[in-house]
Amino acid sequence: MKLLEEKILSCGTVLSGNILKVDSFLNHQLDVELLNELGKEFYRLFESDKITRILTVEASGIAIACFAAQYFHVPVVFAKKGHHKNVGTDCYTAEVFSFTKGTSYTVFVSKKYLNEGDNVLIIDDFLANGQAALGLKKIVEDAGANLKGVGIAIEKGFQDGGKNLRELGVKLKSLAIVDSMTDDSIMFREDD
Amino acid sequence: MKLLEEKILSCGTVLSGNILKVDSFLNHQLDVELLNELGKEFYRLFESDKITRILTVEASGIAIACFAAQYFHVPVVFAKKGHHKNVGTDCYTAEVFSFTKGTSYTVFVSKKYLNEGDNVLIIDDFLANGQAALGLKKIVEDAGANLKGVGIAIEKGFQDGGKNLRELGVKLKSLAIVDSMTDDSIMFREDD
Repeated sequence: MKLLEEKILSCGTVLSGNILKVDSFLNHQLDVELLNELGKEFYRLFESDKITRILTVEASGIAIACFAAQYFHVPVVFAKKGHHKNVGTDCYTAEVFSFTKGTSYTVFVSKKYLNEGDNVLIIDDFLANGQAALGLKKIVEDAGANLKGVGIAIEKGFQDGGKNLRELGVKLKSLAIVDSMTDDSIMFREDD
Repeated sequence: MKLLEEKILSCGTVLSGNILKVDSFLNHQLDVELLNELGKEFYRLFESDKITRILTVEASGIAIACFAAQYFHVPVVFAKKGHHKNVGTDCYTAEVFSFTKGTSYTVFVSKKYLNEGDNVLIIDDFLANGQAALGLKKIVEDAGANLKGVGIAIEKGFQDGGKNLRELGVKLKSLAIVDSMTDDSIMFREDD
């Protein structure tokens, strides 16, 4: 998606450790006009999949998921991380290893908010090693729901998450795929 | 706001420990049509305040803040909790005590995303003891920005957060104020 690639080129910065910092518009400060366009694009890509619920994970996925949900007219469910008193024990859970933070955490979704037969679209801001997406995929399957697709804003194409999900047969659509990045250049994969 | 009060009455449940569980539409599963209406109402209430940025805190505040921001045409900044590698050290910070979780945590905002002279509207899903709102207020003041108001979806009127903020002269607008709640009834404060 040209709009997102241009935004990454103009506002993103590359830090050591393969970090692409886009916190001026995607995951700390939020450019809501841009995010709305991303949501609209996800609708175009998954419109035919009869989506009944959008699943994301706190915190950075929530905004994009909400803008997308406005077009699909379905609820968003965001998986929570760690342990919260208020959520109760009746949850689907998955363990997720974060390479950024170097630790594992639990994501969980109340069993009330994912139903057997739901057609679920997973949306997230980033896909790198794919651990979060795989955790959400497990949760969808544990619920007996159908994973209809995964929509990602920025995929790090030089890490394995995207490759692994595609090999599993998941309909994965990333709006920008970064194939390589250095201090002074970011290269995107051509649209398929 | 009638629409929100009716939703709380039909979908909220009261748990022991003064917990009002509204995770079917506000902070786990998200009813995006409703949240959009809340955002529109915040715009009506703060339209004249020349808002330049909306500040919230991860995770539950993000969705409402984003829907409001669509009407104000301003960016959202969400304060992060805990310590994240990617944020850097150049942040405004505040300590927040969570009565729900029984622990303190740090909230922080990059200095790049709050400017001197910004007119800031703080938005959050809940106001109870007001610790999160006070932490965000401190961050706004540390940045030399102007706190133009605080917009809350649900205020627990029987706890002190709202009273304290109003006594500090803050323009606080809560879309539903729960004055008392028991297992089988929830009483709202009349609009002022």
